[in-house]
Amino acid sequence: MRENKTKTIWAAGGEVLTGWLAIPSSLSAEMMAQQDFDAITIDMQHGCADYADTLSMLQAISTTDRTPFVRVPWNDPAIIGRVLDAGAYGVICPMVNTADECKAFVEACRYFPLGGRSVGPIRAGLYGGSDYFANANDTIITMAMIEHKDGLANLDAILSTPGLNAIFVGPSDLAVSMGHTPGFDPKWDDVIDAIQLIAERCEAHGVIPGIHVGSVEYGQKMRDMGYKFQAFQSDFRMLQVAYANALPAFRAGKSS
Amino acid sequence: MRENKTKTIWAAGGEVLTGWLAIPSSLSAEMMAQQDFDAITIDMQHGCADYADTLSMLQAISTTDRTPFVRVPWNDPAIIGRVLDAGAYGVICPMVNTADECKAFVEACRYFPLGGRSVGPIRAGLYGGSDYFANANDTIITMAMIEHKDGLANLDAILSTPGLNAIFVGPSDLAVSMGHTPGFDPKWDDVIDAIQLIAERCEAHGVIPGIHVGSVEYGQKMRDMGYKFQAFQSDFRMLQVAYANALPAFRAGKSS
Amino acid sequence: MRENKTKTIWAAGGEVLTGWLAIPSSLSAEMMAQQDFDAITIDMQHGCADYADTLSMLQAISTTDRTPFVRVPWNDPAIIGRVLDAGAYGVICPMVNTADECKAFVEACRYFPLGGRSVGPIRAGLYGGSDYFANANDTIITMAMIEHKDGLANLDAILSTPGLNAIFVGPSDLAVSMGHTPGFDPKWDDVIDAIQLIAERCEAHGVIPGIHVGSVEYGQKMRDMGYKFQAFQSDFRMLQVAYANALPAFRAGKSS
Amino acid sequence: MRENKTKTIWAAGGEVLTGWLAIPSSLSAEMMAQQDFDAITIDMQHGCADYADTLSMLQAISTTDRTPFVRVPWNDPAIIGRVLDAGAYGVICPMVNTADECKAFVEACRYFPLGGRSVGPIRAGLYGGSDYFANANDTIITMAMIEHKDGLANLDAILSTPGLNAIFVGPSDLAVSMGHTPGFDPKWDDVIDAIQLIAERCEAHGVIPGIHVGSVEYGQKMRDMGYKFQAFQSDFRMLQVAYANALPAFRAGKSS
Amino acid sequence: MRENKTKTIWAAGGEVLTGWLAIPSSLSAEMMAQQDFDAITIDMQHGCADYADTLSMLQAISTTDRTPFVRVPWNDPAIIGRVLDAGAYGVICPMVNTADECKAFVEACRYFPLGGRSVGPIRAGLYGGSDYFANANDTIITMAMIEHKDGLANLDAILSTPGLNAIFVGPSDLAVSMGHTPGFDPKWDDVIDAIQLIAERCEAHGVIPGIHVGSVEYGQKMRDMGYKFQAFQSDFRMLQVAYANALPAFRAGKSS
Amino acid sequence: MRENKTKTIWAAGGEVLTGWLAIPSSLSAEMMAQQDFDAITIDMQHGCADYADTLSMLQAISTTDRTPFVRVPWNDPAIIGRVLDAGAYGVICPMVNTADECKAFVEACRYFPLGGRSVGPIRAGLYGGSDYFANANDTIITMAMIEHKDGLANLDAILSTPGLNAIFVGPSDLAVSMGHTPGFDPKWDDVIDAIQLIAERCEAHGVIPGIHVGSVEYGQKMRDMGYKFQAFQSDFRMLQVAYANALPAFRAGKSS
Repeated sequence: MRENKTKTIWAAGGEVLTGWLAIPSSLSAEMMAQQDFDAITIDMQHGCADYADTLSMLQAISTTDRTPFVRVPWNDPAIIGRVLDAGAYGVICPMVNTADECKAFVEACRYFPLGGRSVGPIRAGLYGGSDYFANANDTIITMAMIEHKDGLANLDAILSTPGLNAIFVGPSDLAVSMGHTPGFDPKWDDVIDAIQLIAERCEAHGVIPGIHVGSVEYGQKMRDMGYKFQAFQSDFRMLQVAYANALPAFRAGKSS
Repeated sequence: MRENKTKTIWAAGGEVLTGWLAIPSSLSAEMMAQQDFDAITIDMQHGCADYADTLSMLQAISTTDRTPFVRVPWNDPAIIGRVLDAGAYGVICPMVNTADECKAFVEACRYFPLGGRSVGPIRAGLYGGSDYFANANDTIITMAMIEHKDGLANLDAILSTPGLNAIFVGPSDLAVSMGHTPGFDPKWDDVIDAIQLIAERCEAHGVIPGIHVGSVEYGQKMRDMGYKFQAFQSDFRMLQVAYANALPAFRAGKSS
Repeated sequence: MRENKTKTIWAAGGEVLTGWLAIPSSLSAEMMAQQDFDAITIDMQHGCADYADTLSMLQAISTTDRTPFVRVPWNDPAIIGRVLDAGAYGVICPMVNTADECKAFVEACRYFPLGGRSVGPIRAGLYGGSDYFANANDTIITMAMIEHKDGLANLDAILSTPGLNAIFVGPSDLAVSMGHTPGFDPKWDDVIDAIQLIAERCEAHGVIPGIHVGSVEYGQKMRDMGYKFQAFQSDFRMLQVAYANALPAFRAGKSS
Repeated sequence: MRENKTKTIWAAGGEVLTGWLAIPSSLSAEMMAQQDFDAITIDMQHGCADYADTLSMLQAISTTDRTPFVRVPWNDPAIIGRVLDAGAYGVICPMVNTADECKAFVEACRYFPLGGRSVGPIRAGLYGGSDYFANANDTIITMAMIEHKDGLANLDAILSTPGLNAIFVGPSDLAVSMGHTPGFDPKWDDVIDAIQLIAERCEAHGVIPGIHVGSVEYGQKMRDMGYKFQAFQSDFRMLQVAYANALPAFRAGKSS
Repeated sequence: MRENKTKTIWAAGGEVLTGWLAIPSSLSAEMMAQQDFDAITIDMQHGCADYADTLSMLQAISTTDRTPFVRVPWNDPAIIGRVLDAGAYGVICPMVNTADECKAFVEACRYFPLGGRSVGPIRAGLYGGSDYFANANDTIITMAMIEHKDGLANLDAILSTPGLNAIFVGPSDLAVSMGHTPGFDPKWDDVIDAIQLIAERCEAHGVIPGIHVGSVEYGQKMRDMGYKFQAFQSDFRMLQVAYANALPAFRAGKSS
Repeated sequence: MRENKTKTIWAAGGEVLTGWLAIPSSLSAEMMAQQDFDAITIDMQHGCADYADTLSMLQAISTTDRTPFVRVPWNDPAIIGRVLDAGAYGVICPMVNTADECKAFVEACRYFPLGGRSVGPIRAGLYGGSDYFANANDTIITMAMIEHKDGLANLDAILSTPGLNAIFVGPSDLAVSMGHTPGFDPKWDDVIDAIQLIAERCEAHGVIPGIHVGSVEYGQKMRDMGYKFQAFQSDFRMLQVAYANALPAFRAGKSS
């Protein structure tokens, strides 16, 4: 089975940087996959790709060696099974707030005897290879989102879920659930403490901690805390900000 | 009929700045249309939108007051008619190298007696209003591309075409046709001279000169030459460059 | 945040009339939105729009000031979150038969602390504005369907759900659950009594009553009962009936 | 090869009524095909269906025995070949103004030795049958549009084109080319005379005359003139008018 | 209501053969429907069709008299309702492991009083006819998948579900749940025994047994066991194998 | 620039085998690209892929090292430019019957000074690399179809076109133009002679001869004649034949 490059990097103690796709286009997906990322994540929750878009975007990503991840819209075995059969090598599941939810998520990603995923890896077989079934349970990354104070309260129980590979912190939702406002890179002490705690408990449980960040500085801070998987902005947001920054200068006609 | 804001700006001596859409997505189109542009151009030639994408992108643009332009793939009355019926208020036609080609292009955009456009403005009627037919010939902008030395050689004849509103210079193709390499913002003297000449002849003929630029500095230079319509980069290129610039810093972890 | 025009009309005691879209086309959606409706509802349950269609149809509706509603296929937080992030200002949820189901529905539409909606309003931010998060809980309309005798039996409990704005009666399904046949505008006494009761209990609870009707006469009857939100036919049904009525005359060649 | 029902009706002296599809949806297409039409025409010129839509709409129409027609965007052998290979049994070609244009159109629809159509009827073989090639030249209907005074001037030459089966009058464009305004059912004397003349010359040449009409009365007038193929309104226009007519009454609450 | 041909064949003691569609294309769907099958199943679980594809594929199948089935991605009333409204005459539900799951599945397919399906058969009404509601409960086939040893353990309880018409064995998943490897046509004794048992218990309960097979020989074995519904390979797998078998010979240039 | 593997094989005297895609699906495209082909051709003429399908199919093919070809619908610079910008490394142009047509085709594929292709290789730059412009004229394969006796009559003139790399014989259309019936692998003497002649003249002009075949035996015959590029059947036809052959046996229940 084709190697999961993200797992290989983690095994070597390295850090994985993922692109984040909210624009439902295989064209921008392929361009993003040629940037210096290790992985590319299609966001089916807050991004606008539906299943048909996701299929063609996964194919576009597969023109490179970036690990293809999908954030599914919800903890639902139907869509989890479909994106895995479409060739995702990692699944990010939103709003995992209890150990039971985490167990349901992980089992949706695993074949018997570790879970209840049904066998039929149509494009996954093309992408992963003919020995996909034999190796999928060891290759596919399960990544549960901690993005609510309820999940935080159940952190150790969630992290004890057999077969859970990684955590993805949603700092914006987490801050909201703690009474703050949303946005990239929250700086309230209680949120920072929570993010720090997640990293520590992940390390204690042998689970990889990941997080979504919006700036170089915050990314460095997360790196220092031990985060080994970082999503940096998104295609949509990066483009929005790039033009918002550039147009006043263009209108003003500043010279170089 | 709904006003053509770009014509209004030009009538007041102002400059029109257009966004340029190569990514075939109505989501990014709507976000681009909320940036500080006056117009938004869907590029069906080198961009990846087909007709169905273009239709939904025109609708997305129409949530704002930006003037919707389409660059058609070729000087072909079939696609020109279709994008006009879909609600484009300006058409940019590639590779207009002779007066005959220019005449054919303009006539494809105009109703009788000024041209041969067939009547049936299905979405154009929704967008423009019930008096669309009566006013379309005066409202729709025809913009021919000068992007080849052959077009340059026939410049005055092209500019004399009745009903031609504007010229759009393709500096990259123009430079290539003069023996140089492609890219934004060519700086060879002969190309600069040609671009200058086009602006001057446009002014002499009462035709608006437009151009595609890649930087603030070049844009200012074009403004100084008299260009009144500028496309600045494209969504695809801006996103590509933004990540290419940002990722080394992110990897390096520079602090603020 | 952009005003929810439907809420404004209700606040002034007025009636809201919604178009109903079953045809999955952004073209017909835009045309319908130009008719004299106050709102436009995309029906993802019995209509044929999937998520990608819905996204482009929401954009088409947003070229006007009609309030965009979506009837989701089911009481499922995944699709509720996705249509809200796509810019729906109202969500109609089918088959709400218990207070628990109603609570789950409302919480899927509300941000913390009123619910569990995850933050990431990608197109909703474009449509609603940059202050979307701060105002969404007060702006988004939650509308639960009473369309089964079980829901009727639990009416007061359902109407007591905090954050529930409105009820949408499905008269056809309601009649079926009471042993009758389906169709627009049921006239059995027990169904009429139920519809009357819903309007009365809504008024008692400060919840807006809405309903789907098929004729002017029935609409007037509902208006008299106090219904403040009415869907009138659907694009699909209106077109079907229009041709069914017109063709015999055309075949017969009646003169005017 | 499957019978062309329209040809059969014509052979028996009967009249063919066609539905007209401007909305790019296979759902509304299938519903329209269940109405009492003899044929269904997909309008790729002023309607919004692109090729992919057309393919699925042709399949939807093929669930019934209605003859599938396509109006192509332009007199272009590429799209003519594609819609024929997709199973169209009739092609309507816009703006045929000269005999040469008519000859080019007809030859694009005919296999050797009558024309230059390339062989590869992929879906046409599914729809027409395995003997498609042997019978296509006799089965496929070629219908040229007379919709300009130039075409009128060349009428007899156009009607003399070998292999031309029918004419389709575009009364709106024709009126425009004669100095009038567009719209259904023009009533200016010179236009009426032209329409009458076309019917007469068609009969003289053994070519079937067809026309697009907007009302029962005008349809009867055309029938009286000898028109044997009539398109009645369009899905888009019928729906638009139906709601425009119905909503004031609904708002006013007239009783039955 | 249009006859369900599969039910008719079963009533006469006959066997139903279904095509299996994993490729999301209405073109290949129509071609498959012209093969000598009795039914055609669109696989939305392991195949790649999403809802929009399924709609157009159902239309393509409806150009023939093959019974249209859909395997839904999961036991979820939202998607079950949508594919029924789109015209599916049979629903295959994956991973039915308990009687409660089976009951939920069947009720999602049945109108009141047999279940909770909401009324609004938009395309189903076009396909089935205007008396769809009155006859749907008797016409639509419910087919639960037994594909796990847990389902096997609850076999009699599942088969006792009122309104369940048929069982579809997933031999590959079933074998996996019994500790074997996946693939067509498992030959381990315990799996064979289980498949035999299912056929026997189905007969005892008056439920039709069905199964997915990969070869003529295995199909015969299943026929001998009493299986009355067989899916043979899939479009995707058949094409893959056909080229895999043909290309070595082509490369080698064997003569006939 | 990424190597054109087909050119490399030809340079070494080898034979290139291409898959042929008529089904408009990126899923089947990716599976076909994993078969033992050297190239994969998307057929936009008689196959059913439109531009949007072609873009995603090119991406699917690019997950492998197969050379991506597109057969365009017609000799039209608009679509030729678009498929090249989408990353096609070879273009097959139908019905090239004269030297002028061949020159127009080749020039549409070549940048200045060899042709008039406009510069803007959006996905081609992703696929080919940043030095795409500098190397495209030497890398892209131009392949004109000889498929009519008129083309045969002008064979030497066509083969003399500067920049023409290869010929693709359409044996079915060629046979038709010579008075025979269409189909794979024509065996009439005059057609065989013509095919032989084309191979010989190609060799004389240093142009690669290619052809579409339907069987191993015919392929060997073409190989013996010197054909260095062969398309073998198509996905659509292979699937159609595979089931047509398999189902009678399945129905009959032959044992192994």
